Amino acid sequence: MAVYTEVSDEALRAFLAEYELGELRAYRGIAEGVENSNYALQTGAGDFILTLYEKRVDPAELPYFLGLMQHLAARGLACPQPVAARDGQALRRLAGRPAAICTFLPGVWPRRVRPEHCAPLGEALARLHAAGADFPGRRPNALGPAGWAPLLDRCRAQGDAVQPGLIAQLDAALAGLLAAWPAAGALPEGQIHADLFPDNVFFLEGPGGQPQVSGLIDFYFACTDLLAYDLAVCLNAWCFEPDGAYNVTKARALIGAYHRQRPLSAAERAALPVLCRGAALRFLLTRLYDWTTTPPGALVTRKDPLEYLRKLRFFSTASGPEALGG
Amino acid sequence: MAVYTEVSDEALRAFLAEYELGELRAYRGIAEGVENSNYALQTGAGDFILTLYEKRVDPAELPYFLGLMQHLAARGLACPQPVAARDGQALRRLAGRPAAICTFLPGVWPRRVRPEHCAPLGEALARLHAAGADFPGRRPNALGPAGWAPLLDRCRAQGDAVQPGLIAQLDAALAGLLAAWPAAGALPEGQIHADLFPDNVFFLEGPGGQPQVSGLIDFYFACTDLLAYDLAVCLNAWCFEPDGAYNVTKARALIGAYHRQRPLSAAERAALPVLCRGAALRFLLTRLYDWTTTPPGALVTRKDPLEYLRKLRFFSTASGPEALGG
Repeated sequence: MAVYTEVSDEALRAFLAEYELGELRAYRGIAEGVENSNYALQTGAGDFILTLYEKRVDPAELPYFLGLMQHLAARGLACPQPVAARDGQALRRLAGRPAAICTFLPGVWPRRVRPEHCAPLGEALARLHAAGADFPGRRPNALGPAGWAPLLDRCRAQGDAVQPGLIAQLDAALAGLLAAWPAAGALPEGQIHADLFPDNVFFLEGPGGQPQVSGLIDFYFACTDLLAYDLAVCLNAWCFEPDGAYNVTKARALIGAYHRQRPLSAAERAALPVLCRGAALRFLLTRLYDWTTTPPGALVTRKDPLEYLRKLRFFSTASGPEALGG
Repeated sequence: MAVYTEVSDEALRAFLAEYELGELRAYRGIAEGVENSNYALQTGAGDFILTLYEKRVDPAELPYFLGLMQHLAARGLACPQPVAARDGQALRRLAGRPAAICTFLPGVWPRRVRPEHCAPLGEALARLHAAGADFPGRRPNALGPAGWAPLLDRCRAQGDAVQPGLIAQLDAALAGLLAAWPAAGALPEGQIHADLFPDNVFFLEGPGGQPQVSGLIDFYFACTDLLAYDLAVCLNAWCFEPDGAYNVTKARALIGAYHRQRPLSAAERAALPVLCRGAALRFLLTRLYDWTTTPPGALVTRKDPLEYLRKLRFFSTASGPEALGG
């Protein structure tokens, strides 16, 4: 839940005057997305989303993110398309911050994931990977294996206050993961979303009430990494029930639909358990860091890091990819 | 900044199925309004606002608020119009809370008030009062003079922590105000908005770039009280600069435009200073109460109560209505 930056209406009008979008009809802050300030913008040309990039986004990385969205949208993927101003530039400045206008996507993200969401999700993820295949940009995954040890170090002093013994467990899990992680070049790489949680996937009802993906949003963790790691993020984010149980029906639908669109190699399939452990550790560490640095009751809702400790344990004890629905 | 209640997409679809609004296309939480959860809703029939009423709104009062909006909209005032479902009812339940869908209003609220906003505001306020004249409902102002002493009592224990001596100052101000307050029947009464701050007034650019009011929103403090008190609320909310100075140009534009649309009586004009003091005390007390009961950094942004102590002082020293632009 955000909107950190208030934009004066004069500044907004001056900003909009640089575009061919007609006159301003409405703008309202959107209470979703925790990293940036998002506004629903209505102009003579239709509905758009205005994003002001706040301090957690490195301005130097915005050309990669916006370029990737532009590239994916040009290849037919339903994702926000950056809108260029008259001078051809989509990345601009507003209220002292980097800012961009993107197209509005219809749809509703699922507050409660049903198995019927998972096959369309898997197919959309595979389409994203295919659409990104010829994108020339490259961004290392700052929250990939090389980033986990420094992140854990930043949680070291306060982590055990969340749960006694937590840091020792994480040290052990990290050592095991780094030893088991696929070697460079062993698995296909490409542009991945890396944060495809339910609130980043919009659905509309198709024929017979079946959910269909109408859009993928929030590419601000996108990076160049193992394609199958994106699937592992989705298994973490979509396939656990509120009581912590892994829903293998959802996982089979997700992996199956992905595989039909982009067949997983035997090596990718075999690596799924370790990739899932890695994804669980990644979200555990960022949540733990946020938990230990965000005061209780702050504007940003803290998410429970221990949810991902349970997921990490589950994936650590999985007998193989079959147990994960792979 | 709100959105307290998450609505599952199944519950929302079932709710929408009771209306003739076509299919759900999008809904996004809006980060504005602190009392209720608001969603921007897009359906086959267009844009709407879905509001879930949270605990600060008394469900027994909702028929008054929604009925007033219906009445004002029917008389041509640009305000949210509650949308009835197939059974004729606009007030329904969703996710365990009272809920209603209202029409969407275009426009942008002024983040920085300019003098050009004030005449259109004054005219719109007078039109609101005229449109409400034949509304049969009645709601006493819970935050009017009779409510101030109990509210001050609830701040008594902690108020001086905000500023030493504050409670004694407020006791004196309250006693003076109650003694000077217009007697019942002395001034015209009617339906008032009672909270017409800049974020509740939308503007669009008219010919020559002149701001024109496109809508008034958030009628959840509306009540039956002195019409001129609504003007006093606006003088408090619109006519002070960020440095605390009273901008008499803005005030003259506001009062003048109101007066052209609904002439103020001599008694109303004479009462403006005391009504302005009352409005300042009302916002001071609710802010003080929220300040002393809301933890720092909570989801709801605390507003500085002392801003209204300065306004109260200003109005207390005003030589007469002329000094206020009246």
